[in-house]
Amino acid sequence: MTIAKKIETILTGASWIRRMFEEGAELKKKHGPENVYDFSLGNPNLPPPAKFEEVLKELVGSEPIGAHAYMPNTGYPEVCSAVAEFLAREQAAPVEGTDVIMTCGAAGALNIALKTLLDPGDEVLTPVPCFVEYGFYADNHGGLLKTAPSWPDFQLDLTALAAALTPKTKVVLINSPNNPTGAVYSAESLKSLGALLEAKSKEFNRVIYMISDEPYRKVVYDGIAVPSIFTAYRESLIVTSYSKDISIPGERIGFVAVNPRASHRKALLGGMALANRILGFVNAPALMQRAVARLQGEKTDIGAYRRKRDLLCDGLAAMGYAFVKPAGTFYLFPRSPIPDDVEFVQALKAERVLVVPGSGFHGPGHFRIAFCVEDDVIRNAMGGFEKAIRKYRK
Amino acid sequence: MTIAKKIETILTGASWIRRMFEEGAELKKKHGPENVYDFSLGNPNLPPPAKFEEVLKELVGSEPIGAHAYMPNTGYPEVCSAVAEFLAREQAAPVEGTDVIMTCGAAGALNIALKTLLDPGDEVLTPVPCFVEYGFYADNHGGLLKTAPSWPDFQLDLTALAAALTPKTKVVLINSPNNPTGAVYSAESLKSLGALLEAKSKEFNRVIYMISDEPYRKVVYDGIAVPSIFTAYRESLIVTSYSKDISIPGERIGFVAVNPRASHRKALLGGMALANRILGFVNAPALMQRAVARLQGEKTDIGAYRRKRDLLCDGLAAMGYAFVKPAGTFYLFPRSPIPDDVEFVQALKAERVLVVPGSGFHGPGHFRIAFCVEDDVIRNAMGGFEKAIRKYRK
Repeated sequence: MTIAKKIETILTGASWIRRMFEEGAELKKKHGPENVYDFSLGNPNLPPPAKFEEVLKELVGSEPIGAHAYMPNTGYPEVCSAVAEFLAREQAAPVEGTDVIMTCGAAGALNIALKTLLDPGDEVLTPVPCFVEYGFYADNHGGLLKTAPSWPDFQLDLTALAAALTPKTKVVLINSPNNPTGAVYSAESLKSLGALLEAKSKEFNRVIYMISDEPYRKVVYDGIAVPSIFTAYRESLIVTSYSKDISIPGERIGFVAVNPRASHRKALLGGMALANRILGFVNAPALMQRAVARLQGEKTDIGAYRRKRDLLCDGLAAMGYAFVKPAGTFYLFPRSPIPDDVEFVQALKAERVLVVPGSGFHGPGHFRIAFCVEDDVIRNAMGGFEKAIRKYRK
Repeated sequence: MTIAKKIETILTGASWIRRMFEEGAELKKKHGPENVYDFSLGNPNLPPPAKFEEVLKELVGSEPIGAHAYMPNTGYPEVCSAVAEFLAREQAAPVEGTDVIMTCGAAGALNIALKTLLDPGDEVLTPVPCFVEYGFYADNHGGLLKTAPSWPDFQLDLTALAAALTPKTKVVLINSPNNPTGAVYSAESLKSLGALLEAKSKEFNRVIYMISDEPYRKVVYDGIAVPSIFTAYRESLIVTSYSKDISIPGERIGFVAVNPRASHRKALLGGMALANRILGFVNAPALMQRAVARLQGEKTDIGAYRRKRDLLCDGLAAMGYAFVKPAGTFYLFPRSPIPDDVEFVQALKAERVLVVPGSGFHGPGHFRIAFCVEDDVIRNAMGGFEKAIRKYRK
């Protein structure tokens, strides 16, 4: 036994995204990177908004003393206040600066929230398909990820969720706009989910929290509005980052906010401030905190992502691929033309098109295309997409 | 039950540093911040070296495309290589870029190392006094912190360590230069520790790892050299940050490096890359990675810390305080004039002098003075230090 058994097991097991990444690297070496169409990673390809560079230059040109020193574990109070002010409008709720904790991205935010909430054996319920890391995050803190199916259009299936709630459920974790499906949950379904959790909290005599993981909130199309979480359910938390909307995922900056109407607001915030410290995050990166405080509401060129989405959707629809057009995110989650999504992904790989099997997201029979790539990658991949589907639909 | 029991327990329990912080804030409100002498926090008060600002300005003035995008979980390969090149000289070992993983500070580094190494119930042994967070870090990953006393001069007590090693010990965690004592372990004692761990690994038929937590390596005085860890013991890891030596703790940038001669080098590195991802760190902040790559070997004005140390030590020695003069760090860990360090810290507080009881560091009968403060704070606190010791030594 050289390292922890759990880590060894994960390392030797199948991580689809990682496997695709490695096989992709091989393919690129063989054929040249320009001849491999890589849709495997959700790494935003659009630059940050121009204002981001301006703000950064201003900040590093006029550094006050202690600009890179420790600050409270929750972040600079003035940064939390700027975030809260924007969030209060967005959520139509009286969010204050003290309801916000700045974090190392949404992943950091979700981990400090789960550390604060989960007792050993507690369940985290999530509708699937879902982001591949949720299982790890729950397990990090002694919890267990449970899943419930969504409708075929990837909207919330309240009946399935109700059936999956148990006396061990501590958290219902949703992600809208959704990775990998691009679905945006309707206001009605969120209210119904809120009512369900309220009823079940009473029935089980414990608070069931709703955590909304929403780094794609601003990456939406066709004028769609992402509904307020804080008005849908009282016992709720929002975790998010600036990774996708302003294209700075490498900087690890995001936050967690507690619904100001939450019954245990103070315990939640105190617990998460502590968790931020003892999990080793300590605080969100200082300079980027000061940057995003001045970039509230800013976003990259979402129209460009819409153009990529339409280019991809129009092309694939014409070939006979079946999918739900995503209302947000930069992911498309088509049905695999054959039930075995892993086989179909291999067929695409034979055409030098890299995507991720839906099985990796608890969504077998589908595959994920991350279309945060150059338009030409989409155009040039069309031949491969066509050949692959023809192979199975003669 | 509103939040996790464990978190609730910690929150309601005694965190000395936090309690001092809160009581200190009260005192400052009452007397004015300039009349409270706050030595409670290890927050470097010296500015970063001038080159840091220069490098930052250059970097944000010439951002390449994708400068803030995701990179490998281990960090930019060129940054890891720059770190490795410096480390190879410092450690006199053939460290390569792939032996280094960039992290969110030393706290992030230590957490991914422990996540990678610990099976449930595994023990982490550390000499005490020690950094207050180690217990939390071990517990985060199912481990248990065990302690062994040091000699009265805070050097390693090999006999005590040998007695505390058990078949469950997976990690021996050392911190030199040490927080809170300022001790720097000698090359001889590190070699003896290496030999002890080698023998015990054989005896117990499992690898016992040495983790050296060394963010204060460059904060040393009087020409003292901090010995190489990688030459002292083969199965070793170094975790560190740029927080203290270049005064940027708020930016959360550090690294973990694996001894290139470690038996399971590849498994350790693969495991920690995975742990960096699934614990929610994902990667070290991008811009700061690129900055520190160009600041290898740089440090803040260590001479100023030495001046503060001498000012403090000379003053306290004249009053009859007993202490070991620290060879490094910006901490002094004097003996409390009475056995009850908490009572003595309260006596200092009555003089508006804020320090932390040694009990908070598994070092009862002592107290910690963080002298990373303005010289005048040290000078102005002298009266209070004198009154407090006189109260008990009439």
